[in-house]
Amino acid sequence: MKVVITGGGGMLGFKLAKALLARGKLTGADGRETAISKITLFDTAFPPSLPQDPRLETVTGDISAAGVLAKVVTPETQSIFHLASVVSAGAEADFDLGWRVNLEGTRTLLELARKCAKPPRVMFTSSVAAFGGDLPEVLDDSTTPNPQTSYGAQKVCCEYLVTDYTRKGFIDGRSLRLPTIVVRPGKPNLAASSFASGVLREPLNGVVSECPVSLDTGVWLLSPGRCVESFIHAHETPSSLWGMSRVLNLPGITVPVAEMIEAMRRVAGDAVAKRVVYKPDERIQKIVANWPVKFRTPRALGMGFKADADVESVIRAYVADEGIKV
Amino acid sequence: MKVVITGGGGMLGFKLAKALLARGKLTGADGRETAISKITLFDTAFPPSLPQDPRLETVTGDISAAGVLAKVVTPETQSIFHLASVVSAGAEADFDLGWRVNLEGTRTLLELARKCAKPPRVMFTSSVAAFGGDLPEVLDDSTTPNPQTSYGAQKVCCEYLVTDYTRKGFIDGRSLRLPTIVVRPGKPNLAASSFASGVLREPLNGVVSECPVSLDTGVWLLSPGRCVESFIHAHETPSSLWGMSRVLNLPGITVPVAEMIEAMRRVAGDAVAKRVVYKPDERIQKIVANWPVKFRTPRALGMGFKADADVESVIRAYVADEGIKV
Repeated sequence: MKVVITGGGGMLGFKLAKALLARGKLTGADGRETAISKITLFDTAFPPSLPQDPRLETVTGDISAAGVLAKVVTPETQSIFHLASVVSAGAEADFDLGWRVNLEGTRTLLELARKCAKPPRVMFTSSVAAFGGDLPEVLDDSTTPNPQTSYGAQKVCCEYLVTDYTRKGFIDGRSLRLPTIVVRPGKPNLAASSFASGVLREPLNGVVSECPVSLDTGVWLLSPGRCVESFIHAHETPSSLWGMSRVLNLPGITVPVAEMIEAMRRVAGDAVAKRVVYKPDERIQKIVANWPVKFRTPRALGMGFKADADVESVIRAYVADEGIKV
Repeated sequence: MKVVITGGGGMLGFKLAKALLARGKLTGADGRETAISKITLFDTAFPPSLPQDPRLETVTGDISAAGVLAKVVTPETQSIFHLASVVSAGAEADFDLGWRVNLEGTRTLLELARKCAKPPRVMFTSSVAAFGGDLPEVLDDSTTPNPQTSYGAQKVCCEYLVTDYTRKGFIDGRSLRLPTIVVRPGKPNLAASSFASGVLREPLNGVVSECPVSLDTGVWLLSPGRCVESFIHAHETPSSLWGMSRVLNLPGITVPVAEMIEAMRRVAGDAVAKRVVYKPDERIQKIVANWPVKFRTPRALGMGFKADADVESVIRAYVADEGIKV
């Protein structure tokens, strides 16, 4: 069977590709487990080193331009993981780019998916950025999306698209609202959420991390590994389990920054934990104050999705993945 | 000041145009009340007889084709009433047409609105078709949209667009979720909601009406006249009253079909009321069973929006508008 991963050059898309290659099979559009014959990664750019695997191919292009994507999502495609997206800060900085890539790109993808020989399973990457404004203390699947960013608005619109294409029988769609992914490997960036990974990543890599938010700030988080498992699990669950409700808040854990640092101390020692320096940044504090921190996710848990056990295991997974000596 | 009404050839758009011509002024984008110098009605077609008024012009075209609309929404436009839409049954029958006109047409309109000299006030016509699935007995502004039609999904996506364009300061948008409009003049159509007007309109016009739903079926309704008043009121309320919440369920009244018929009996006599024949239609019963019937609308009422007093006054308004002798 043929699998497509948009955003396949990104951290999550790439991890997902590796996990699928190792797994070797997926449930196809006909409900039968089938060997993966090809995984096409689609993105605007790719890291220089890719796993050498005859099943893996990469295609470079812009998702909002139908031409290239039509060569990727072909009639025999049975499975699409749609991770490509202009990120939150990017969509806020460039309004046109965000709507073009995140909304119109998804429309283009869904139109191609609709032309597949059998309605493909489509996993859409949504986000808790869907939520904002006056929030209840604990959110759940009935909480009305009220995004405070263009990125969030784009994700919500795409959820409605995926649900409607599914209702019409064109695709078999599943939208997953991802918690903040921690620990993201790589470098700090300008995103307001950068601290959530940075407070762990930089100290573990021997660098001081300036934490812009108070230590009691909670983060609703999911590890990259557990996130990839969730994508695959979303793919493997039968359509009947989703029924007409195709949007799901993924399980996560709520961890205050102080608890992250304490867990890091237990994993990597006091010297590492001391590399976190509190340097308040009012702008970031203000943004983060409006983020959802606690969720009830009984439906997702009932469907077999799993959160990380605790933040210590999240840190241990990062350390193992990156080959960091502690 | 220059006003644009998309869907200006339709029943509501046309009534709105007449009400605005009579009113003669509106609050402009600068917050000051200004004489209306021009009202441009945009639609795919117009009724043969239009009011003769030098301020009124009509432009015929397709809203999803940017070219024509760019001649309508020009930099000096200060006020846009966006009523153009493929209707519910139409969007369900032609998926591509619905998404193209209802979503992409709105995007095209908003992009042009964004280029206006001052951010124009944009009134967007949404619908209680936003709601569906497992509904609470009484809905309110916190009820999560869960549309069961493409039309509903398109309306919800546009609400998020209007809110995001507003948040960015490109427009000053307000989305109104309309109840079922009763009494719609004209002929019965294939829409599942056709009975809601038909049960009154046909008998008042001397024709038998076949009611496909049981007489205890409730309808959440608003008269065309009160709807037009709501559009104008939405335009006139200051931006500060809306804050960041740009979507509103309009007030309406919940009226069981039996009560409609009784009110018609009081207005037009027993012989007229007896023209309603109960002829159950399971398909329509099933669709209507999923419609929202009761709403709490404290925010809208607090902002000065008004429902009709009762169904009897709705009927009397229709009779007066149409010049029916009772």
